[in-house]
Amino acid sequence: MTERILLAHGGGGQLTHELIQRVFVPRFANAALARLDDAAVLELCPPIAPGTRAGRLAFTTDSYVVSPLFFPGGDIGKLAVCGTVNDLSMVGARPLYLSAGFIIEEGLPLADLERAADSMAAAAAEAGVSIVTGDTKVVGRGSADGLFINTAGVGWAPAGVDVSGANARPGDALIVSGALGEHGMAIMSLREGLPIAAPLRSDCAPLNGLVEALLEAAPAGAVHSLRDLTRGGLAAALVELAEQSGVGIELDESRLLVRPEVASICELLGLDPLHVANEGKLVALVAPEAAEAALAAMRAQRYGSEARLAGRVVAAHPGRVVLRTPLGTSRLVDRLVGEQLPRIC
Amino acid sequence: MTERILLAHGGGGQLTHELIQRVFVPRFANAALARLDDAAVLELCPPIAPGTRAGRLAFTTDSYVVSPLFFPGGDIGKLAVCGTVNDLSMVGARPLYLSAGFIIEEGLPLADLERAADSMAAAAAEAGVSIVTGDTKVVGRGSADGLFINTAGVGWAPAGVDVSGANARPGDALIVSGALGEHGMAIMSLREGLPIAAPLRSDCAPLNGLVEALLEAAPAGAVHSLRDLTRGGLAAALVELAEQSGVGIELDESRLLVRPEVASICELLGLDPLHVANEGKLVALVAPEAAEAALAAMRAQRYGSEARLAGRVVAAHPGRVVLRTPLGTSRLVDRLVGEQLPRIC
Repeated sequence: MTERILLAHGGGGQLTHELIQRVFVPRFANAALARLDDAAVLELCPPIAPGTRAGRLAFTTDSYVVSPLFFPGGDIGKLAVCGTVNDLSMVGARPLYLSAGFIIEEGLPLADLERAADSMAAAAAEAGVSIVTGDTKVVGRGSADGLFINTAGVGWAPAGVDVSGANARPGDALIVSGALGEHGMAIMSLREGLPIAAPLRSDCAPLNGLVEALLEAAPAGAVHSLRDLTRGGLAAALVELAEQSGVGIELDESRLLVRPEVASICELLGLDPLHVANEGKLVALVAPEAAEAALAAMRAQRYGSEARLAGRVVAAHPGRVVLRTPLGTSRLVDRLVGEQLPRIC
Repeated sequence: MTERILLAHGGGGQLTHELIQRVFVPRFANAALARLDDAAVLELCPPIAPGTRAGRLAFTTDSYVVSPLFFPGGDIGKLAVCGTVNDLSMVGARPLYLSAGFIIEEGLPLADLERAADSMAAAAAEAGVSIVTGDTKVVGRGSADGLFINTAGVGWAPAGVDVSGANARPGDALIVSGALGEHGMAIMSLREGLPIAAPLRSDCAPLNGLVEALLEAAPAGAVHSLRDLTRGGLAAALVELAEQSGVGIELDESRLLVRPEVASICELLGLDPLHVANEGKLVALVAPEAAEAALAAMRAQRYGSEARLAGRVVAAHPGRVVLRTPLGTSRLVDRLVGEQLPRIC
C-alpha cells in the first residue's frame, strides 16, 4: 500500500477495503465494527443491569475541521471522540457507541491518518466507548484540507435523568469546572506562530466521568443544565442556557479562572477569554441546596479539580447574561457576531 | 442575513444561531431538534408497541461528498438521507432517527444549503425518519468543495431479526431489486457533459419500505443478507457478501437489468455496469424456499417493481463471485483496484 492517500482509497473498491482493514479495524477493535455490515447492530445497554432498561436514547453529532490537525494536548482524532462523548454527557446520558466518518484529501500522509486513529482509539478507551461503524471518503487535492472527521454518538439516559438547557431555574448555582480558553488559545498560538515560552496545551478531555460523578453526588433532579464550553466559549454556552430556559444568568468575573499564559495571548490577539473555546470544561446549573455536594464531587475528579462556583441563575433579565466585575460594575455578555477563531474544532 | 455562507456562520456565535434557526429547525421540524441541547434525547421505539422492546440498536454513518451537489433525480441532501436510511435497512432495522453534520465552504450560496435541506426534509418524510440533531462547520474558500454532509442514523432491529453479510448460505437465491448503474451514470454524464438525448436520472431512493415488505413476506430468518448497491456497484456488494459469509456467488448476466442509456454511457466511458453505483437498489440473499414470496413482495413495492432472481449462493469457490454469461462462459467478478468514479456519493 502506498504511503499517501489516493482517490482510490475512497472508491469503495480494493484499496478502500485495505485501508479500513489496515487503519481502522485493528485500532477500534470490536466485534460490531469487525463485522463490516452496512450498520452496526448493538446491544443497547451492555453496562446497565437488566431491569433498568427504562430510559431514553441520546444521539448527537459533530464534524471536526480543526487546523492544524495536531496540536499540543491533542489532535483532530482526540477532539472528535471527546467532543461527541461530551455532548452526550451534557444531557446526562452515558456515552456508549460512536460512529466515525472520515473525509480525506488526496495526498494526506497515511501516517497522519494512523496517528489520528490512534488518538481516537485512546480517547475512546479512556471514555469507555466503542467506535462501532464508520465511513471513508476521499476527495481530490484542493477539495478538502487534509482531514475532516465526523463523529456521531449514542448514549443512554436512564429514566429519571432530565438534564437540559431548558431546565435552569432562578436560584440555581453556576459551577464552572476549570480554567477558560485553553483549547482555543493552544490552537491560535500554534497557528499564528506566537513567540511564547512554553507551548500552550489544549484541555481536550472526555467529561463523562466528571458528569457521572456529579449526577451521583447530587440528589435526583438537582442537576438542571450542563453545557460543555466549545466554540463561542463560556459566553455562548451561558447565553444559550439563558435563552433556552428563559432565565437570567449572573457571572462573577472574580470567580473565573484564566491562566496567565492564556490571558496574555488573549490580550495579544484582542480576545476575551469568555469567548474562547475549551474542549474539556463544562458549566453546570445546579439547585442551590445541591451546590456544595456537586462541587465537592467535581473537585474529586481529574477533570474537575479546579471547579468553582462562579455565578447564579436569576429571574431578572430573562435570556440575558450579565458579568459582574470585581469593581462592582456589570456588563452584558453576548454571543460574538463575527468570527474570530475559525476552525478551532 | 447575507445570502452567502460566511466563516462566522460556523463560529458558534450569533450567525451560527441564526443559520440553524433559519435553515434547519423549520425544515427538520421536530421537538428533539428544536430543543437545541447538545444531544437529542429520544424515545427509542415510538412506533413499536410496548412489550416488543426486545431487540438491538442499529447504528451507521456515511459522509457525502458528491460532485455536483445537484443532479437529475436527487441532490446531496436526498442522497445523505437515503444512503443512511438504506444502510440501517440492510441489517433489517427500522430506521428511526438521523443526525446531520454540515461542512460548508465559505461562499456557498445560502440558497444551495436551503435547497439541500429541503431535499433532506422531503426524503426523511418519505422514509418516516426524523433528523433530530446536527452540527454546522464552515471552512475557508478552497478548504472544502461547496458542501459535504455527514448523516448518522439509528434504528431498531427487533429481536429475531438477524440480517448480516455473514449469514449467506449455499443454496440461497440472489435477488437484485432493479436496474443497475443509474446513479453513477447520472452523475458521470452530468460531470463529463456527455451529449445525451435525455438527462439520466439517479435512482436515489429510501429502501426501508421495500425491506420491511420483504421481511414481512419471508418466513422468519429466511432473509439472510441484504446490501444496497453504492460505491463499487453490484460487484463490490457481492464480493463483500461472499467474503463475509465464506461462500461462493454465481451471477447470471442474462438476468441483470441495465437500461440502454446506462449501457451506452458505460460503453462510452469504458465502464462495466457491474461496478457502477446505484443509490436505490439492493441485493438480497434469501433461503431458496422463501425466494418466490420474497420476490413477489418486492415487486409489489414502488422501488422493487423490477426485482428479479439473478443468481445463487454456492459452496464452491468461497469468497469469490463468478459471472455466467449468456454464451455459457464464466468470469471472475472482483472489486476495482483503481478509482474510476470519484465523488459519486
